[in-house]
Amino acid sequence: MTTAVIGLGLIGGTFALALKDEKISTSIIGVENNEIHASKALQLGLVDEVLPLIEAVKKADLIILATPVTIASEQLTEILNNISTQIVTDTGSTKLGLIEAIKNHPKRGRYVPSHPMWGTEFSGPEAARHNVLNGIVNIICDKNDSDEDALEFIENIYNRIGMRLVYMNSVAHDTHLAYVSHISHISSFALANTVLGKEKEEDTIFNLASSGFESTVRLAKSNAATWVPVFKQNKENVLDVLNEYISQLRKFKSALEKENWEYLNELIENSNEIKRVLDKNVKDENISLKQISKQVVSKK
Amino acid sequence: MTTAVIGLGLIGGTFALALKDEKISTSIIGVENNEIHASKALQLGLVDEVLPLIEAVKKADLIILATPVTIASEQLTEILNNISTQIVTDTGSTKLGLIEAIKNHPKRGRYVPSHPMWGTEFSGPEAARHNVLNGIVNIICDKNDSDEDALEFIENIYNRIGMRLVYMNSVAHDTHLAYVSHISHISSFALANTVLGKEKEEDTIFNLASSGFESTVRLAKSNAATWVPVFKQNKENVLDVLNEYISQLRKFKSALEKENWEYLNELIENSNEIKRVLDKNVKDENISLKQISKQVVSKK
Repeated sequence: MTTAVIGLGLIGGTFALALKDEKISTSIIGVENNEIHASKALQLGLVDEVLPLIEAVKKADLIILATPVTIASEQLTEILNNISTQIVTDTGSTKLGLIEAIKNHPKRGRYVPSHPMWGTEFSGPEAARHNVLNGIVNIICDKNDSDEDALEFIENIYNRIGMRLVYMNSVAHDTHLAYVSHISHISSFALANTVLGKEKEEDTIFNLASSGFESTVRLAKSNAATWVPVFKQNKENVLDVLNEYISQLRKFKSALEKENWEYLNELIENSNEIKRVLDKNVKDENISLKQISKQVVSKK
Repeated sequence: MTTAVIGLGLIGGTFALALKDEKISTSIIGVENNEIHASKALQLGLVDEVLPLIEAVKKADLIILATPVTIASEQLTEILNNISTQIVTDTGSTKLGLIEAIKNHPKRGRYVPSHPMWGTEFSGPEAARHNVLNGIVNIICDKNDSDEDALEFIENIYNRIGMRLVYMNSVAHDTHLAYVSHISHISSFALANTVLGKEKEEDTIFNLASSGFESTVRLAKSNAATWVPVFKQNKENVLDVLNEYISQLRKFKSALEKENWEYLNELIENSNEIKRVLDKNVKDENISLKQISKQVVSKK
């Protein structure tokens, strides 16, 4: 089988490696506008050749779209315009924008929207990694809008890579993701800017960064080319959560200003509940994933 | 040598283990008001016996104060009232409050304020760990206010545990720590509260928490008994940084509301600078630590 991977960054490169490692795809064609990334991807063996978009699409059985979500929205129409029975999936962190862009396209059924819940703070083809997708949740959205054979084909491939499939409608997906992922990034970006503002005065501050700071600020290494499009496409949800986040921070501010230590204690103890939830997550992973699939499917 | 460790939680317990492991202390007396923690610490072998504060102080050559910082402030006076030539150090995340509390005490010189830059999100004696302090920065504050022999004694012990000593005045310490540690905690606590608020509606959201969310929210597992006192003692600095943090978040909000994607891009790229700083930190660690020591000492 021949696969076209559109966008040879962290995610596209990692999927290219997984398809090769699992012997799912014998030939991988890359599509990449950035020439440095393109030749790096060839050099690293992520892809066998690099071709222009339409040429790659026409030669491929499977097309995986892994460009920033705003670019992916534009490319998706072009891809669907140029396929016959091939199958298209994507890896974007927002889903509604992509799906809306092609909802009335005659080839809509060939597209299976998906979102693998994996990433690192690094970017570019050098960031691609072997053997990291096994066990990772991959969310398939609006599955009833894909052709049955296309859905089955994509499910089969993700299963062979070892991914755990979760089904969700695209509206719920984008709301959930604003909470569990997008706001974490804004929280880290703003934290980095806060501390970097201070650095002008105190160059030494960073030597004191213990692991607590490093883990909280880790996502601030994530690149703008990926994240501006995500925030653009998920603007309303992200704004809702950001407003809620600022209002939660104001509660800490108010507790400090009023020296209301009981309230501060309550705010912290409330936040500690995250421990129970995350721990439950680890223990009951399989059960929860089954539950989530059922719940989400039943909502559709 | 006999050591009294006051407060048998994560930090006190970890120092007790280090002193035993490095054969620095042959006998360790614990002081702990929480009876469950006290018997757990005995059972785990963190300490050889548990005694009331004054009794322990009188029997010890070295006293390590590892209770929450507001309690430590009160205990420090009581300890200094009851020592002759023994030496006292502490492990608190704020320094000015403790030092102010005893600045005119006739035994001030026997106290060497220190802050080991280590911790985890766990608490209690079960959270104590072996072999984790080696290579960790330990900040000694206002060193000229300690007796020369007491300072040397403490430096020697921390060196034997493998800690890297940094010297700083207590005012600078508390400002720096608000930036590199205290705000990270508030950022995580508030993030957890934001997401937990949502959980009431969507029990399934947590199954989607990828590693990005988990690392950003990790510190929200930290306990209120430690952190309320820190915020209490470092109130003004923490409020300054929190205001700055909220104002940085408002920039993201404004960029989103105005759909000013260029500005959003700029905000993210600016935050990416943290990568350079944290990476520099790893590479130039030894040089920077020497620099920091010189700079801070010269400020005193």
